[in-house]
Amino acid sequence: MTFFPTVASFEKALSALPEPNEASVAAARDRQAQLTKPPGSLGRLEDIACFLAGWQGRERPRLDRGRVLVFAGNHGVAALGVSAFPTAVTAQMVANFEAGGAAINALARAAGLDLQVVALDLDRPTANFTRAPAMSEAECLNALSAGATALEDGLDLILVGEMGIGNSTAAAALAARSFGGPVVDWIGPGTGVDSHGLARKAEAVAAGLALHEQAPHSAFETLRRLGGREIAGIAGTVLAARHKRIPVLLDGFISCAAIAPLAAQNGAITRHCLAGHQSAEPGHARLLAKLGLEPILTLGMRLGEGSGAAVAAAVIRAALAAHDGMATFAETGISKGE
Amino acid sequence: MTFFPTVASFEKALSALPEPNEASVAAARDRQAQLTKPPGSLGRLEDIACFLAGWQGRERPRLDRGRVLVFAGNHGVAALGVSAFPTAVTAQMVANFEAGGAAINALARAAGLDLQVVALDLDRPTANFTRAPAMSEAECLNALSAGATALEDGLDLILVGEMGIGNSTAAAALAARSFGGPVVDWIGPGTGVDSHGLARKAEAVAAGLALHEQAPHSAFETLRRLGGREIAGIAGTVLAARHKRIPVLLDGFISCAAIAPLAAQNGAITRHCLAGHQSAEPGHARLLAKLGLEPILTLGMRLGEGSGAAVAAAVIRAALAAHDGMATFAETGISKGE
Repeated sequence: MTFFPTVASFEKALSALPEPNEASVAAARDRQAQLTKPPGSLGRLEDIACFLAGWQGRERPRLDRGRVLVFAGNHGVAALGVSAFPTAVTAQMVANFEAGGAAINALARAAGLDLQVVALDLDRPTANFTRAPAMSEAECLNALSAGATALEDGLDLILVGEMGIGNSTAAAALAARSFGGPVVDWIGPGTGVDSHGLARKAEAVAAGLALHEQAPHSAFETLRRLGGREIAGIAGTVLAARHKRIPVLLDGFISCAAIAPLAAQNGAITRHCLAGHQSAEPGHARLLAKLGLEPILTLGMRLGEGSGAAVAAAVIRAALAAHDGMATFAETGISKGE
Repeated sequence: MTFFPTVASFEKALSALPEPNEASVAAARDRQAQLTKPPGSLGRLEDIACFLAGWQGRERPRLDRGRVLVFAGNHGVAALGVSAFPTAVTAQMVANFEAGGAAINALARAAGLDLQVVALDLDRPTANFTRAPAMSEAECLNALSAGATALEDGLDLILVGEMGIGNSTAAAALAARSFGGPVVDWIGPGTGVDSHGLARKAEAVAAGLALHEQAPHSAFETLRRLGGREIAGIAGTVLAARHKRIPVLLDGFISCAAIAPLAAQNGAITRHCLAGHQSAEPGHARLLAKLGLEPILTLGMRLGEGSGAAVAAAVIRAALAAHDGMATFAETGISKGE
């Protein structure tokens, strides 16, 4: 299943999620116990190696083909003045990605990852969700399918990132509708909006939640009413990755908010996901807790693009290097201790 | 100044610490402000790039020649049963480092770092510090000098790690004497000692502190009475690195404890240091706070060898890649926003 021609096909994909290969997890755990170190002393690195073993179905997982998928889209809600930047910046930054000059280009190169940019109808912003659903059913299905079909076979790991002026407002609305709680818990400065902009974000989120309150609270309806094309693209690629058993490294607040509606409907969706970086965006820590994910890094980043995930990919590379490259006690004759 | 023939030469080196190149820091900050991202949105990555700019004296710092120095030594206090492993493991692990099979080998390779192992008189453990000073003046000066002379010129960054069965007990004693507080605040399971071993560690630390309480509380006397050769080696290399303006990436509890006596005497010693990883060892968070250092990573590692620092080196590489490789607003014509 690699695309979503109907709402029913999306619902079916979300309801029947494959599980990791437990034999590979067990083999990886057994290998960790034989490596020349005290048991458990590599901490999270051990867990990461075993996690990847399960999804890749290999005792010794690899990161030869890692890819960042950056989805871009524009948002009608940006017209309400919720961002520090004009919407033209979305397309300008996509051009920057394609020219190789953005943070994600430099960080992907440093981490040995490919970069794939998926710009979705930048000249057609979604509708302003305080007035109407952001997308029609067909538009949302198209964006979900664009995410799913963008995902090539044979990748060892994908990272998901985004670019979309106004999308931290959409993300706050998705998180609030998916997990409840006061609006103020889910909004933040995004790329750096001032206090007036922050107040406009809170108003927009509250208005959007109120307008769509009576609609079905399904993952699909939440995504199409409050999301955006790049957000649905992420949701589609994460769901397709699960069916291909490709592990996913999430980025910041927006990439996590993209799967929040899916997680509210089927909490198991996060099982093939790692959280790369806990953003400085205040709602992200809360969102990660709701998703049951512990971030690998907390470095005060708040850029999006997949940038936090790309830095975390280096930690994953370290985890795999230790798992694959270390000698065992048997190979060396070193005492295993007490 | 690259070695310490006398106590006075060590004292002099610690009292006259060079400062970073502030013009390079300012140039790096200015460059960060021009890169195609919202100001400050790369968080700690921006701070790391500017920190390295100051110590390397370059607007665009580099990590072409990064090296892990792993110091090894044996401890008389290990005879008290404070470790889960026998002291023979120190030499076995040094052989493993030299054969390339340890965690630090795999992690250094993954991070593109050289590895230099400095084994210090493994067949001559220090004295048991609950009965006598761990080292004579000459032994301590030799270990400090071994650290200083191990440091080659022209390195862009060094990471310091250690191997020494029993050294988390020595480290706890150093931290307690340097910064005070109850012994129980500074001890922990180390590589995995059980509750009986933990009680023996607490007794040993308390006995060591009591025996040496009346001696001068100088950095040198604390190091020689409660430290060890690999610990003094780290102190010597960190101090020599400062005089060569080579930035240092610290590892876990023991590498931080090695500079605790120096920091108690001159708090500025940590200014050229970054903390790579906050160990699972309970006292490490407290020790980092006393040193005024915020860890780059917290991944539950507790191995030593420089392993946490080696993982953190990948974050530094990411920071430098973004700093050096991104386009500026002027180069791209992207709107800078509000």
